[in-house]
Amino acid sequence: MTTPASPPGEAVADVGERALIERIRRRLPPAPPSLLVGIGDDAAVASPDRGALTVLTTDALVEGVHFDRRYSSAGDVGYKALAVNVSDVAAMGAAPRLALLSLILPPDFPVADVDELIDGFVELGRATGVALAGGNITRSPGPLVVDVTVTGAVKPRRVLTRGGGRPGDRLFVSGSIGGAAAGLAWLRDRSRGQEPSAAMLDCIGRHRRPEPRARLGTLLGRTRAASACMDLSDGLADAVRQVAVASGTGARIESARLPIHPGARAWFSEQGQDPIAMSLAGGDDYELLFAVAARARRRLKVVDSQARGVPFTHIGELTSAPEIVLDHGGSVEPLPRGFVHF
Amino acid sequence: MTTPASPPGEAVADVGERALIERIRRRLPPAPPSLLVGIGDDAAVASPDRGALTVLTTDALVEGVHFDRRYSSAGDVGYKALAVNVSDVAAMGAAPRLALLSLILPPDFPVADVDELIDGFVELGRATGVALAGGNITRSPGPLVVDVTVTGAVKPRRVLTRGGGRPGDRLFVSGSIGGAAAGLAWLRDRSRGQEPSAAMLDCIGRHRRPEPRARLGTLLGRTRAASACMDLSDGLADAVRQVAVASGTGARIESARLPIHPGARAWFSEQGQDPIAMSLAGGDDYELLFAVAARARRRLKVVDSQARGVPFTHIGELTSAPEIVLDHGGSVEPLPRGFVHF
Repeated sequence: MTTPASPPGEAVADVGERALIERIRRRLPPAPPSLLVGIGDDAAVASPDRGALTVLTTDALVEGVHFDRRYSSAGDVGYKALAVNVSDVAAMGAAPRLALLSLILPPDFPVADVDELIDGFVELGRATGVALAGGNITRSPGPLVVDVTVTGAVKPRRVLTRGGGRPGDRLFVSGSIGGAAAGLAWLRDRSRGQEPSAAMLDCIGRHRRPEPRARLGTLLGRTRAASACMDLSDGLADAVRQVAVASGTGARIESARLPIHPGARAWFSEQGQDPIAMSLAGGDDYELLFAVAARARRRLKVVDSQARGVPFTHIGELTSAPEIVLDHGGSVEPLPRGFVHF
Repeated sequence: MTTPASPPGEAVADVGERALIERIRRRLPPAPPSLLVGIGDDAAVASPDRGALTVLTTDALVEGVHFDRRYSSAGDVGYKALAVNVSDVAAMGAAPRLALLSLILPPDFPVADVDELIDGFVELGRATGVALAGGNITRSPGPLVVDVTVTGAVKPRRVLTRGGGRPGDRLFVSGSIGGAAAGLAWLRDRSRGQEPSAAMLDCIGRHRRPEPRARLGTLLGRTRAASACMDLSDGLADAVRQVAVASGTGARIESARLPIHPGARAWFSEQGQDPIAMSLAGGDDYELLFAVAARARRRLKVVDSQARGVPFTHIGELTSAPEIVLDHGGSVEPLPRGFVHF
């Protein structure tokens, strides 16, 4: 880093908005050539990708609602605030491009934590090809809020909506489910003083720094392998329901196929909770749920070969019967409801 | 409005995120054809203007910092949250296009106020050609935060930055200055019980619902009349300083030329304050400051003829001397500092 460390205890109110912006700017990597005007003018100006549509999303993390500073560092919060937005862009089949960062800071927020937050943000930005184009800083009498907007680019006819599925399409989910929820549960419970297992350490990492499936989403769009796609911000059960409703279908999920994170399976079992139900309902798994028509299965092989090790699992299918069900090896029940934010 | 009024006292926590989103969607006008995927998917998808660059800006209003619910209705807050962003887009010479709205709501926030807030937002959106493309709603233990992102479109070589001015360029400001600051001061003081004058009513309106100079900004870019441009969110003195510094020039402002709002002049005089100093420093005037080179003065006449009654005033010039000064009819002093947010 080229910026000096701030004096211990220095708070944002001691530094002022413009000095903070300058400080943030010095922590950023060089801007891509497409960003013609970056931080420091009234607005950012960028060249859109030639022939592409623009994708836009915004999502905020609020202290005390979406994160707890006892469990997440400022760097984790910066990383995750970008991750949740990149995940939304990926779920449209688009490549993420630019971000705007709106920081709403209590006056006593440490300047050193702003530095860390930016470093977490930039770390994921580098990994996913997202440049910070601008933003805003304001003080607040309330909690820390990190509100991010991300843009993406996608060619026409490569857009993945929630509503493109048809009966018979297979449903897939990337990675694993339940890990983030188990990791957060473990953190809340750690007063017991035990050390986390390796699997639990991975769950904790998934809560703190979820890895958005940017490359997979872009591939699913570009190859037209998926007929519908959505990210799992509110849990798999919720995502299945949303995709089915938007597509005008039902859905059947086979519980034996669910890729439950091993750490989540162990943790929920130890707590006397059903790992399947908890992993279906747990939010914050920024995986992708997507539907694949029979005719697109060869395209999915192309995606698999280029996804750089991100696995995906066939978990069920969209159905012409309107029910949305969970199949336990022949015994069928309604799919439970997912995570509710509000 | 097609939505029923909410029961008296109904709060957002009683309704839930998805019902709120559906409620908001029903209050919106039809989406423009360029918005291919709007509210309800992981992200919005839009066709960019052919051959145009994309402009992006974000700005948040925080209760207790940027507005006081005793002085501004929820509709005013929705209107202003869009206005401050449209102003930034206009200051780049761009036409505003799409908005994302991130609402961070205390759980007891009334549903009826969400409706009003959206109606205020939509009112300005209609007037300035901005469509609500998406957003996010989250609860918060803190104050109401309305965070907005606006995109705009501008042709290459029509972008107006702060840094394009040259010594000798004349400086102009649109509309009038000081009105919003005087309006807010009057509202804070109204315990005295007097009725506002007509001029003060206009000042109060400018605090509550500033009119961003969207058409003027677009015209200044399209005609290439301006060499530099910036909006006055932090006051005229600050804007002059920023444009001069970014352009590598000094500036001389003539106090006698300043278009001080009549209500502000009267109010600050009554208070024993200097109307010039107060109007230069007062924030929240979403006017445009712009520089015009000698060779571009005919283009400025074209702008004037098409600006639909938005006046602008020659207030000084950029100078090769590096000082930034206020000239009181020959006696020169440093230009005072502007409004500081943080």
